[in-house]
Amino acid sequence: MAHGSRLVDLVQTRIDSFLDERSSILRSIGTDLEPLDEFSRRFLSGGKRFRALFCYWGWEAASGTGFDPFADGDARDLAPIVSAAAALELFHAAALIHDDIIDRSDTRRGAPSAHRLFERTHAEAGWLRRSDEFGTSAAILLGDLVLGWSDELLDEGLALLTDRAAARAARAEFNRMRTEVTAGQYLDILAEQSWHRRGDDEQREIAERVITFKAAKYSVEAPLALGGLIAGGSAPQLSALRGFGLPLGIAYQLRDDLLGVFGDADVTGKPSGDDLREGKRTMLIAVARERLASGARALLDELLGDPALDEAQIRMLQRTILDCGAVDEIEGLIEREVANARAALVDAPLSDVAKAELGSLATTVSRRTS
Amino acid sequence: MAHGSRLVDLVQTRIDSFLDERSSILRSIGTDLEPLDEFSRRFLSGGKRFRALFCYWGWEAASGTGFDPFADGDARDLAPIVSAAAALELFHAAALIHDDIIDRSDTRRGAPSAHRLFERTHAEAGWLRRSDEFGTSAAILLGDLVLGWSDELLDEGLALLTDRAAARAARAEFNRMRTEVTAGQYLDILAEQSWHRRGDDEQREIAERVITFKAAKYSVEAPLALGGLIAGGSAPQLSALRGFGLPLGIAYQLRDDLLGVFGDADVTGKPSGDDLREGKRTMLIAVARERLASGARALLDELLGDPALDEAQIRMLQRTILDCGAVDEIEGLIEREVANARAALVDAPLSDVAKAELGSLATTVSRRTS
Repeated sequence: MAHGSRLVDLVQTRIDSFLDERSSILRSIGTDLEPLDEFSRRFLSGGKRFRALFCYWGWEAASGTGFDPFADGDARDLAPIVSAAAALELFHAAALIHDDIIDRSDTRRGAPSAHRLFERTHAEAGWLRRSDEFGTSAAILLGDLVLGWSDELLDEGLALLTDRAAARAARAEFNRMRTEVTAGQYLDILAEQSWHRRGDDEQREIAERVITFKAAKYSVEAPLALGGLIAGGSAPQLSALRGFGLPLGIAYQLRDDLLGVFGDADVTGKPSGDDLREGKRTMLIAVARERLASGARALLDELLGDPALDEAQIRMLQRTILDCGAVDEIEGLIEREVANARAALVDAPLSDVAKAELGSLATTVSRRTS
Repeated sequence: MAHGSRLVDLVQTRIDSFLDERSSILRSIGTDLEPLDEFSRRFLSGGKRFRALFCYWGWEAASGTGFDPFADGDARDLAPIVSAAAALELFHAAALIHDDIIDRSDTRRGAPSAHRLFERTHAEAGWLRRSDEFGTSAAILLGDLVLGWSDELLDEGLALLTDRAAARAARAEFNRMRTEVTAGQYLDILAEQSWHRRGDDEQREIAERVITFKAAKYSVEAPLALGGLIAGGSAPQLSALRGFGLPLGIAYQLRDDLLGVFGDADVTGKPSGDDLREGKRTMLIAVARERLASGARALLDELLGDPALDEAQIRMLQRTILDCGAVDEIEGLIEREVANARAALVDAPLSDVAKAELGSLATTVSRRTS
């Protein structure tokens, strides 16, 4: 992953220079826009950068340049893909800023979420009206700003491509991703709030649809495809990247679901059991409900989504989910999906160095602890 | 304005066909996304379409085609500009959806705002948790969706241009507009909530900056420039369009400020005195504060922004603002700005038909009652 870390640095440098240009626009409008600049930078430093990495390796897989990102001379060739990877990270930051409002999350990566930062700015400055409402309003606008910027950064990258058909296909992939993940996010809140209107036998299917559109396509398949399309990849190459990306994306999110219930707060940066308090209707919950007797299922349904759950209740729910065998079933699903992903690489017309790296990323994202 | 109405029809047709394509994506994901489709259409029908009209006339002014939008044969030539005009309307709908959350507005054009529509959907379906929170969350996502779509529609239009430099310049104008209006909206809520931290002598300057970035550039100057750039307009042409657009945009917003306080609810679709209950710190308020004695100014400051203001209080505030001469001063400013706008057209290297139409639009937007 040394290769990966170096790329993460290149992406960060690109993000920083892009934000420098945007802050000069903000400064030309007024000095009191400083929080928009400061907080956008804060949400664009750090993070795991998985989307950027998948985008890069999709590109390398299809172009087979065996490109060495350590060599100075090639920086120009790398500019389109680094910009596209950086654009995905901007889009993701914008989505998280809005998601945290929607989920009423106080924290992000162990630090305050954007609306909480603005809320604090308001309270400390002693402005009028409610600090929490200012926090939400300002965070909606910050998300909108970064959403627009993600688009500009992608365009800057695609403008450097001489292959115009590749640029158009890459743009279409990004657009589709943007619509699908927003729809997936809507389905997610719908599932949380209307699951009781659907039969017990439909819960798994609902969770699967959320996982597909909100997570698997968005976090893995689309970034890989975007990279592959920027490289001007062939139809069989794109098909292999998607065949790898979709199951791996499902595994990625299933791991996330386990971490949301059982993760260590010190490692994830989110309170342990956070998904239980939020009442997320994940695959893990759907599977647990299928396995539990009706009494235990009713108790799970009753407690799930109660923001006031205490430590003892969280531990009891964790125990219930574990003991019914749901965790083992999800671990089995993760294993199966990762195997499906790996199988898609075997005879794929993709570069060997990328295949090796994608195989290693598959391990990382499916076994991660944060 | 018959010419104008015909254009409005062309823009609506373009919006409808674009939304048809997007709803087929939504349908492929799931039938329960129907509200996203329905409500996006609702916020994209009707409205005054001033931005679309300015965009078209900026194009006509710079291209001087003397184009007849009634003639069937020319539809292909018109496609880029109609798509760009439609994209501005999509962007505007997205901004309004988010603005109504921020301003906690219950209505838009006399009908429920987006977050209220989703709130009602939730309540009627008997879903879990709070209907108002679902309303806000779903409307944030709907705004994000339409924001992304505005961008796609602009791209579809610009892709048809053979003049690539013109396409790039048009895209840059749209991007700059997007950043500036979002920053302007942030400055607007900041002005509402932190005006008391600034000196009495700074209030007019603060209001002027909001009016410039949130309204004047966004509603008039940028649409005109976008159209002019799509036509491949020369620097003197663009300069003339901006010289007309910025002062007219200021006049447009000053009229809006008057309507927000004195407008007829039946005509504006917003409750009369709405801006007073919302506590908007407009130029009208800044001017009134300068003119009022300290006791009356303190009373204005105290009442402004109280959502519970009753009819009698609204009438008293209207009377105070009127009697101090603030309305006359604003009417004088509108007249001056419209004169400045008209002056910019006199020797401008723009087509005569467009000059005549822009002159007529100047009258419409500065004298409108809704």
